[in-house]
Amino acid sequence: MTASQGARPAPVPPSPAPQPGSLPLAGLKIVELSSYVASPLAGLTLAQLGADVIRVEPSGGAADRTRLPVHPSGTSLYWAGLNRNKRAIEVDLTSAEGRGLVSDLIVRAGTLISNTERHRDLSYPELSARRPDLVHVQLTGRHNGDTAVDYTVQAATGFPMVTGAHPADPVNHVLPAWDVAAGLYLATALLAADRHRLLSGAGQYLRVALEDVALATAGSLGFLAEAQLTEIPRQRCGNYVHGTFGRDFVTADGHRLMLVVLTRRHWRDLLSITGVTETVAALEKELNADFAQESERFRHRVPLAEMFAAWFRERTVDEAEAALGSTRILWSRYRTFGDWAQDDARLLRDNPLLVELHQPGIGTYLAPGSPIVTAARNPPRPAPGIGEHTEEVLRDELGLSAQELRKLRDARVLGGPPRAETPR
Amino acid sequence: MTASQGARPAPVPPSPAPQPGSLPLAGLKIVELSSYVASPLAGLTLAQLGADVIRVEPSGGAADRTRLPVHPSGTSLYWAGLNRNKRAIEVDLTSAEGRGLVSDLIVRAGTLISNTERHRDLSYPELSARRPDLVHVQLTGRHNGDTAVDYTVQAATGFPMVTGAHPADPVNHVLPAWDVAAGLYLATALLAADRHRLLSGAGQYLRVALEDVALATAGSLGFLAEAQLTEIPRQRCGNYVHGTFGRDFVTADGHRLMLVVLTRRHWRDLLSITGVTETVAALEKELNADFAQESERFRHRVPLAEMFAAWFRERTVDEAEAALGSTRILWSRYRTFGDWAQDDARLLRDNPLLVELHQPGIGTYLAPGSPIVTAARNPPRPAPGIGEHTEEVLRDELGLSAQELRKLRDARVLGGPPRAETPR
Repeated sequence: MTASQGARPAPVPPSPAPQPGSLPLAGLKIVELSSYVASPLAGLTLAQLGADVIRVEPSGGAADRTRLPVHPSGTSLYWAGLNRNKRAIEVDLTSAEGRGLVSDLIVRAGTLISNTERHRDLSYPELSARRPDLVHVQLTGRHNGDTAVDYTVQAATGFPMVTGAHPADPVNHVLPAWDVAAGLYLATALLAADRHRLLSGAGQYLRVALEDVALATAGSLGFLAEAQLTEIPRQRCGNYVHGTFGRDFVTADGHRLMLVVLTRRHWRDLLSITGVTETVAALEKELNADFAQESERFRHRVPLAEMFAAWFRERTVDEAEAALGSTRILWSRYRTFGDWAQDDARLLRDNPLLVELHQPGIGTYLAPGSPIVTAARNPPRPAPGIGEHTEEVLRDELGLSAQELRKLRDARVLGGPPRAETPR
Repeated sequence: MTASQGARPAPVPPSPAPQPGSLPLAGLKIVELSSYVASPLAGLTLAQLGADVIRVEPSGGAADRTRLPVHPSGTSLYWAGLNRNKRAIEVDLTSAEGRGLVSDLIVRAGTLISNTERHRDLSYPELSARRPDLVHVQLTGRHNGDTAVDYTVQAATGFPMVTGAHPADPVNHVLPAWDVAAGLYLATALLAADRHRLLSGAGQYLRVALEDVALATAGSLGFLAEAQLTEIPRQRCGNYVHGTFGRDFVTADGHRLMLVVLTRRHWRDLLSITGVTETVAALEKELNADFAQESERFRHRVPLAEMFAAWFRERTVDEAEAALGSTRILWSRYRTFGDWAQDDARLLRDNPLLVELHQPGIGTYLAPGSPIVTAARNPPRPAPGIGEHTEEVLRDELGLSAQELRKLRDARVLGGPPRAETPR
C-alpha cells in the first residue's frame, strides 16, 4: 500500500447532483494513466462530456508528447488533438513517493483509465484495497495481456487481406480504427461500471484488449461466422461495397464520386437519371436476375457498374452532382484532408462541431468538439502543457500546502528536468 | 401525443439496485428503433453489459434482416451478429395504434436508441412530453440531418485518399469503421445521459452524426490540424505506419509479417536480430540522422526497410517469428478470415471472448461476447427471430392481456404477413 507524505485523502464526497443545463458528466473525476491513442481517446471522450480528466505524465512528459504529425514549431498536433479538455500533472513515476501521490489522487477521484500495468502500487488490487468502490478500466493488447498495437492487430485479424483491389497485397488502413473503437469501448465500460457503482456502491475492474475489439467487431459484422459457416471466403471487391450496390465513379473532369444504392427507390432513381432503365430491364431478363433484390444488385455489380461508369465519364462532376442531388441516392465526392483545410465548400466552418481553438505552441485552428451533441455545449479547450496543472490538482484534490509542493518540486518528485531524449 | 388501446403505462419504478455480481447494466431497459450497423451496435454493446435491449421491427422484420453475408439457409450472418443478446418485437409502424404501443414501451423503458426520424409520434418532443426524464440518443448522417452512410463518409472525409500504395486511387476501407465508432459513441452518450438522469432526475436528447464522428476522429488524431497548419499534406505511405517505424515484410516462404518498432529498445532489438547494427550506424552517420528518434526512423524508413526486407527474404516465417519472439518488438503474421476459421493456431478457441453459440437458422459457431471483460460473464445469446418476444414484452412491460394481444394480432398491428419483398 502506498502513502504519500501528504495526508491520507479525505473521505470521498458522494457525487454531487449536476446543475440543470450542465454537461452530462459534470462532477465525474477521472485519472488517466495512459499513452498513444486508445486510452487517451477514452479520456478525451469523457472530458468532452463534462468529466474532469486528469492525465498523469512521467517527468519530462508522456512518451507520446512528440508524436507526428507535428507543427513546424515542434509541438505535436497528434498530442494536442487527443488531450484537449484535460488537465495534466507531471510526476516522477520511478519514485515511490511520486507513485504514492498518484495513488492518493486515484483514490480521491475514484475512477481510473490506464494502459499500463508497469507499477504494482498503481494496480487494481492495491488501489481497491484503499478505495473499494474504485472503477478501473484497463487497456491491454491481447486478452492474455500480451502487447499489440493497431497495425499488428490489423494484420492479425483479416481486414487488410480484403481491402484494396490488388490481389495478394494486404492494405493496412491508415486510420487506427481498432485504437479508436477500443478507446470508445473503454469509455463505455467506465460509464457502465460507474452506473453500477452509483446504484449498488460497488466498484469494479474492467479490461478491454485491442485484439478482442477487432475480433468482436469482425464477429458482430458477420465476418467470423461467414468464414466458419460458408464455403466461399470473403473476396476482395475493391471499392465496391460488399452486399449491396455501391462503387466509386470517375467524371469527365477527373473527379471521383462514391455512390451507394441501398433501397429500391435509390435503385429506380439511379436507373432513371442515367437513362438505363430499359437497358437494365433487358439485362435483368438476360441474366434471369431480380435487381429489386439488394443481393442480386451486388451479385451482378460488374456489368451494372459498367453502364453507370459510362454515364459518369460523359459528365462533369457538377453535372453528375446536380443529377444525383435531385434523388435520394447516397453519394459523396472524394476529398483529401487538404480539401477540408482549403475549405472551398466551407465544410469545416459550416459545421458547429468545429470551432476556433488557440493551442499554445501551435496557434489558432479549427478543432472538433465532441461528436455527441447535447443541449449543453462544451467547446474544445487546449491540450495542457507538461505539468500545467500539477500544483493546482495536488492542492485542490489532495490538499497539499505550498510548502509541501515546494519540497516535492525540489526533490524532483514533481516536474523534473527537461527531457534530454525521445520518450522511452 | 400517442395513446395505445392499452392502459397508460404505470408510473416507472426507480432503477433497482443491482445484485452483487450482476452485470454492470443490469436493470437498464432500452428500446432500439434502428437498422444497419451503428445503432444496432450501440444496442448490442449495452445488451452485452447487461441491459435489457428491445429491438422494435416493422411488420415482416427490419430492413436489414436479409443483409449479406448470409448462411446457405438464407439467414443473415450480419443480422445475427449485431442483434445477439436482444429481444425483438414486431409492430406495424405504419399504423397509429402500432406506434402508440411503441410509444408506450419507450415511455415505460425510459431510454431510446434510434436512427430514424420518420415518425413524429416517436420523436423526442412527443415522447418527452409523456416522460420528461426520457433519454433519447439519435443517429443521423450529417450534422444538419442529411443522410450519409459509412462509405460516403469515408469518401467525404479523406482517409481513402491516403490509404494503399497506388497514387491517385482512393482505397475504401472494408471495415465500416465510422459505423462502428458511431455505435460506440451512441452507447457512451446514452450512459452519460443516464448518469446525469440518475443524479439529477433530468432526461435529455443527444445526437451523433456519422460524418461528425469521422471529422472528430480526424481532428483528434491530428489530421485536420496538419492539413490546416502545415505545408506538406499527408502523403500516402502504403503499409508503412506514419510517424514511426513500421511496415510489412515478406519471408522466404511467402508469408507476410507486420512489424512495428515504437521504442528505442524495440529498435535496438531489431538491429540486433537482423545483424545490421553496424551497417545502420554507418548509414546514420552518412545521412547525419539520429535513429534513436522515432521521427528520424520514419523519415529514413525506405533505406532502413530495405535492409530488413533482405533479412526477411532469406528466412522462413518460422525462423523470422522465432527471432522476433525473443524480443519485445511488436509484430504479427497477416491472417485471412479463413485462417481464423481453420484455426490451426486455435486462435479463436484459445480466446475466452469467443464461445459456441447455437443460432436458429444458422447452427453452432464461435461467436464473440463483449470485448469489455467484467467479473460477471455474459456469454452471447442468439439473435431473436422476427417478433420472437412481441407478446412477452407487451405483456410484461405494458401489462397487455391475452385478449388484447389476440385482438392486436388479428388486426395485424402485431406480427403481420410474411414479407413479399426486399425491405424498403
